[in-house]
Amino acid sequence: MRNPQLDKNGGLQHLLTLDGLPREILVEILDNAAPFTEVAEREVKKLPLLRGKSIFNLFFENSTRTRTTFEIAAKRLSADVVNLNVSTSSTAKGESLLDTIDNLCAMQADMFVVRHAASGAPFLIARHLYEQGRDDIHVINAGDGRHAHPTQGLLDMYTIRHYKGDFTKLSVAIVGDVLHSRVARSQICALVTLGVPEIRVIGPKTLLPTEIEKMGVRVFHDMREGLRDVDVIMMLRLQNERMNGALLPTPQEFYKVWGLTGEKLEYARPDAIVMHPGPMNRGVEIDSAVADGAQAVILPQVTFGIAVRMAVMSMLAS
Amino acid sequence: MRNPQLDKNGGLQHLLTLDGLPREILVEILDNAAPFTEVAEREVKKLPLLRGKSIFNLFFENSTRTRTTFEIAAKRLSADVVNLNVSTSSTAKGESLLDTIDNLCAMQADMFVVRHAASGAPFLIARHLYEQGRDDIHVINAGDGRHAHPTQGLLDMYTIRHYKGDFTKLSVAIVGDVLHSRVARSQICALVTLGVPEIRVIGPKTLLPTEIEKMGVRVFHDMREGLRDVDVIMMLRLQNERMNGALLPTPQEFYKVWGLTGEKLEYARPDAIVMHPGPMNRGVEIDSAVADGAQAVILPQVTFGIAVRMAVMSMLAS
Amino acid sequence: MRNPQLDKNGGLQHLLTLDGLPREILVEILDNAAPFTEVAEREVKKLPLLRGKSIFNLFFENSTRTRTTFEIAAKRLSADVVNLNVSTSSTAKGESLLDTIDNLCAMQADMFVVRHAASGAPFLIARHLYEQGRDDIHVINAGDGRHAHPTQGLLDMYTIRHYKGDFTKLSVAIVGDVLHSRVARSQICALVTLGVPEIRVIGPKTLLPTEIEKMGVRVFHDMREGLRDVDVIMMLRLQNERMNGALLPTPQEFYKVWGLTGEKLEYARPDAIVMHPGPMNRGVEIDSAVADGAQAVILPQVTFGIAVRMAVMSMLAS
Repeated sequence: MRNPQLDKNGGLQHLLTLDGLPREILVEILDNAAPFTEVAEREVKKLPLLRGKSIFNLFFENSTRTRTTFEIAAKRLSADVVNLNVSTSSTAKGESLLDTIDNLCAMQADMFVVRHAASGAPFLIARHLYEQGRDDIHVINAGDGRHAHPTQGLLDMYTIRHYKGDFTKLSVAIVGDVLHSRVARSQICALVTLGVPEIRVIGPKTLLPTEIEKMGVRVFHDMREGLRDVDVIMMLRLQNERMNGALLPTPQEFYKVWGLTGEKLEYARPDAIVMHPGPMNRGVEIDSAVADGAQAVILPQVTFGIAVRMAVMSMLAS
Repeated sequence: MRNPQLDKNGGLQHLLTLDGLPREILVEILDNAAPFTEVAEREVKKLPLLRGKSIFNLFFENSTRTRTTFEIAAKRLSADVVNLNVSTSSTAKGESLLDTIDNLCAMQADMFVVRHAASGAPFLIARHLYEQGRDDIHVINAGDGRHAHPTQGLLDMYTIRHYKGDFTKLSVAIVGDVLHSRVARSQICALVTLGVPEIRVIGPKTLLPTEIEKMGVRVFHDMREGLRDVDVIMMLRLQNERMNGALLPTPQEFYKVWGLTGEKLEYARPDAIVMHPGPMNRGVEIDSAVADGAQAVILPQVTFGIAVRMAVMSMLAS
Repeated sequence: MRNPQLDKNGGLQHLLTLDGLPREILVEILDNAAPFTEVAEREVKKLPLLRGKSIFNLFFENSTRTRTTFEIAAKRLSADVVNLNVSTSSTAKGESLLDTIDNLCAMQADMFVVRHAASGAPFLIARHLYEQGRDDIHVINAGDGRHAHPTQGLLDMYTIRHYKGDFTKLSVAIVGDVLHSRVARSQICALVTLGVPEIRVIGPKTLLPTEIEKMGVRVFHDMREGLRDVDVIMMLRLQNERMNGALLPTPQEFYKVWGLTGEKLEYARPDAIVMHPGPMNRGVEIDSAVADGAQAVILPQVTFGIAVRMAVMSMLAS
């Protein structure tokens, strides 16, 4: 089976992961997103590109925030959007998941936006569609387990390019719970693909995957050292469910060592930008003053995220 | 009170049940559904027939799947759809249900799609609208208790006609838990109305209603005998809540006796079609190989279901 | 900070409360609502006034009924509506609420319809938008704690004006649990603003706020005496959670003393209208015969409520 994300002409068939996504397509998505940022500034924030298309937000894991970004993006493209919050319990078996998909395909779905607690679920769906010969139906991974969150990775790249321009001269640090973060995986893949020469991950040993160096990153266990002279700081969210777990000290202790404060920020370049995928735990991974400070580009990330999702949806549907 | 489903000119006022629905209207719905199957094949799957109409999906019983089919059908007709998941607890009293209806009528609702655990709830609503003189508001029964699920019955008839043509030459078997099935009731009414000469129900005595023969069916307690030479097999879903109940052995034992396997399927005519209203319990009422086999028309049922619902909605609203 | 509800030209910037809303604006809303009642009578109940606008229904407190009225109003104005049911737990800290708002602003929201259990939450949001310089984003208070429910107050005023005309000649009684009622607060503010000379509140001491006379009302602890010769009776809903509390006897005893029966209604003027914000507890605050009787205008309130919300939304967005 060929790269499941690409159609027979090498165009984008699904967006499942940034791992292995060709550089040209990644750049094409960023390029296509640019004009969509302008749509949002207009009086009528709507384009007829996906009129009459049926997009299903298939959320097997609850995420109001992410669902909203896709819903807004789809509605601004004039698509018909149906939200399905499917409890994982009713689809415990993979077979049952695919029966759900078959049913929605039979309703002439055009696109699935899939969020699932199990790594690989969107791939399973994409492979099933391929086996059924349904190349008219497209899958977007909106976060699967610890695996990938490609639209988040893309909007992060859009943001970096917007503020920093040339990727090939940058030093970028990713800070925090890399081990459990699908966001970090997608970010690293994209940064490698785009030729960022220095990619650092910063965190405690217990929250970094073993052998992560093989992804092409440098590991730092001292935050100040890791931040030294970087151009971009990408903070990760500390999942609430981790906070009281065995892997971590208290949130207060975590903050002391791994939280981004103004003092630590000074180790980075003076024009470094600070990013966060949201929602933030203020006072845990990041100090409020930094989150709201002049170097933070956290809210522009959200804005660019809508444009990037509109770009992906319009590329898939065309 | 006249037939509550018909308006004063004999047209369709509500769709509450297939019991007593005139044959001409039933056939008219099937005829009207045909062009809607083509809409779904188009680039822009949308018609302006219900533009500006307000359709309320009133689900007093949760059913993501059925709600989705009506939502898609309504949106493809350009209606404004509002989903209301009303917990039965807050409307325990019939009075309270009708207060809810009165309120939505006061918001200028055009149509209610009603799912309710209590048999007869959509009738109660239709009668109330009649008493209020609101003949501009229409009710579709999306499943009420054990009573009826008319759009399911209609899409089943559409499917049979699509594959088998003339109803008056067919032998049809309905298999499984007929006792608790609103689907079976709607199917039998429609098959009788359309002149099917041989309608069989197959199942254990504990899961067949007493005196079901009076509906015009033949009863079989031996599945192989019941399937012999039939043209159409309509499997019923075994409700999960029944599976561990007193009426039934284990799912495995049920499957052994009443599950549709390839071996049992051979008793039917070689060109027999296999239907199921979904969602399927694979390995309980049906073997996976049969469900995915060449004779299964289970996914076309879903596709035709959207078209049938579009047809019903457009007939009601016009 | 100037009146947070008004823009720099004195127009409507947010609708947060009727307390301090200038009389001209209040009357303008009522005037603007009138033509929207006619839209609902049309074949196509839709206007393009808010096409391409993104309206977020931000419900931190569950209310299917109120959410539905705003959703219908927004869809009839052709807006894109996104429903967000945000559990208060995830936004326990005010900071977190404002992070949610910042995120939605970054998605180019045009309007927030906010329901919150905490009094003042919509003000907090409005002030935050002001501090961020986002005068392009508007807030409608859909009920905050015990504080205010301005669209309910406005639709009540619309209803009174529709049936009674001149406010300056009226005697109006508000009956029941005034203490916990945001509706009563909004009603009193509006009645005072519109120059109603006689505003009465009727209820037990335990359910009336201390010093309520300072709002410009007369207090009655005898219902018959309070209803004598009034033109308008506005019943309040008895919150279910109060019913078994320490402040109240049983619902039956409450009904006996404070429920509106036909007998008590006779103390009012013969042409008095009976109003209720819904949902009604029949047999608790109001007798069914009165609720469905000739003097009740409870369902017209609902109809006018859609028109008033359309008027507010279109004024804010223009």
